[in-house]
Amino acid sequence: MLVINDAHYPWLLLVPRRSDVVEIIDLNEIEQAQLMTEISRVARALKEITKCEKLNIAALGNVVPQLHVHVIARRQNDAAWPRPVWGVVPPLSHDAEELQSFISALRRKIWLG
Amino acid sequence: MLVINDAHYPWLLLVPRRSDVVEIIDLNEIEQAQLMTEISRVARALKEITKCEKLNIAALGNVVPQLHVHVIARRQNDAAWPRPVWGVVPPLSHDAEELQSFISALRRKIWLG
Repeated sequence: MLVINDAHYPWLLLVPRRSDVVEIIDLNEIEQAQLMTEISRVARALKEITKCEKLNIAALGNVVPQLHVHVIARRQNDAAWPRPVWGVVPPLSHDAEELQSFISALRRKIWLG
Repeated sequence: MLVINDAHYPWLLLVPRRSDVVEIIDLNEIEQAQLMTEISRVARALKEITKCEKLNIAALGNVVPQLHVHVIARRQNDAAWPRPVWGVVPPLSHDAEELQSFISALRRKIWLG
């Protein structure tokens, strides 16, 4: 799991450890089920931590083909609402300390529930 | 399953028959697994029929909250590439006959494999 360094949105990226996989349909059934379980776990944690109004979950990969799933917390007052986040405003770097505390909170929530 | 009437991209929408559900994490584990199976089945059929270069799969719902999953066939020469499709160019109506033959091909592929 990666955190995208864009303070406009709490934005996570799930990257299956399979550099040869491009599409969800390239995963076998068991891997697909595992991916769904992980998306759900991460999305739940992200929603609880951010108290966001909407989740955006997407596997696009038009620019970087290796399979990755975006899990993004959206609010009606965020920089792109109601549009999808991609390419709307230039990314804004996170404050390093804020980022660390966000990551710690996520880790706790994902692993301890 | 719905077909979006935009000839710019072969574009399907999976809408679980649960009008009260907004997020994937609102589904229980079995429903999530079923959704993943259906996404995979539809995405595979769409890719085979369109011979597309990339699939875009996304649950956004910022505008229409009821849970729906976009399954879109992308090509490097399509109207929005490499950007996501939403809001890039106004939709272009399908020719009615083309649309019917696309739907028929999809149905056959999804149900017969």
